[in-house]
Amino acid sequence: MSYSPLLVRLIDSLRCMPGIGRKSAQRIAFHLLERDREGASVLSTALADAVEGMGRCSRCRMLTEHDLCAICSANGRDATQLCVVESPADVMAVEDATSFRGLYFVLLGHLSPLDGIGPEELGLSRLEERLRDDGVKELIIATNPTVEGDATAHFLSELAARHQVPASRIAHGVPLGGEIEYVDSGTLSHAFYGRRIIE
Amino acid sequence: MSYSPLLVRLIDSLRCMPGIGRKSAQRIAFHLLERDREGASVLSTALADAVEGMGRCSRCRMLTEHDLCAICSANGRDATQLCVVESPADVMAVEDATSFRGLYFVLLGHLSPLDGIGPEELGLSRLEERLRDDGVKELIIATNPTVEGDATAHFLSELAARHQVPASRIAHGVPLGGEIEYVDSGTLSHAFYGRRIIE
Repeated sequence: MSYSPLLVRLIDSLRCMPGIGRKSAQRIAFHLLERDREGASVLSTALADAVEGMGRCSRCRMLTEHDLCAICSANGRDATQLCVVESPADVMAVEDATSFRGLYFVLLGHLSPLDGIGPEELGLSRLEERLRDDGVKELIIATNPTVEGDATAHFLSELAARHQVPASRIAHGVPLGGEIEYVDSGTLSHAFYGRRIIE
Repeated sequence: MSYSPLLVRLIDSLRCMPGIGRKSAQRIAFHLLERDREGASVLSTALADAVEGMGRCSRCRMLTEHDLCAICSANGRDATQLCVVESPADVMAVEDATSFRGLYFVLLGHLSPLDGIGPEELGLSRLEERLRDDGVKELIIATNPTVEGDATAHFLSELAARHQVPASRIAHGVPLGGEIEYVDSGTLSHAFYGRRIIE
């Protein structure tokens, strides 16, 4: 059975979004066409404009439409603290959750030799320049607690040591609201190892 | 903290889709911009084309870019069987799941007097014309088994009776793979009431 080609194309192209399968794509397509054509038009323009206009910040590799991103070009951020994250979404998460007022460096991935992702693909030469020239006093490593994220963190800490910059890594342990009984053993072992004296 | 305006606009406009909240919208935006800009461009064009080109089938009210939808204009469909559904998504579901080869009528909603949705908003005068003129021999009512869907089904069956067209309603009961113990009482009562002699 062949449906309207425009409809089939819309449903197919909605599936380029992560987490959207065939049924969800159908539901979204019908919702937009039946109830929210204005929203669909706005979305279409926003997508085209973003694809057209969005580039990388030349300093931290965050997504931006300018040469420098909003954080790098903001006044009053503390350039002595540099936080390294894997993705732009991590920048937003840290900004939303913490009162961190330093700057960022976005790796856009993690070390993964099998996939051909080495230090050059992560822009680490640019990071080295910043460690050397920008007066960084602490490198805060916020890569994910995965095998690749751990390897990347190790590599970054050695890089920092070479430039006499102290490096730290964000704490891993039992999440707030989590139950010790149900936490996986890797996390629990991390939490024990990283225990702190109560002051 | 202000992010890139283009990015903020993209994330906001992604939220016009049902089931997409703030976190999902962020994830989709970053995925598209980091990994699938081509997909994003295709989606943008597909949305614009669909909003621009999609109208209603003049016969069954299905979404289409032509005067008649693909089903109404197809050869070899059985015009004596007419299936009434609430939404275009229901047409796709019936087409995918069954070997039904008749035609459809899409209500684009259900009777809901409190929301100002009466017979006219559901295009029932158009449906009456078809019952009168098109040689329909069975009206298959496939509205949802909700209060409004039931009321609509009742109204439709009276309409069919007025035109001497036999009406049927699709069966409701325990879904395949469902467990009788856990099925809600309304469904179980329907299943009992609708029991069939084993042949």
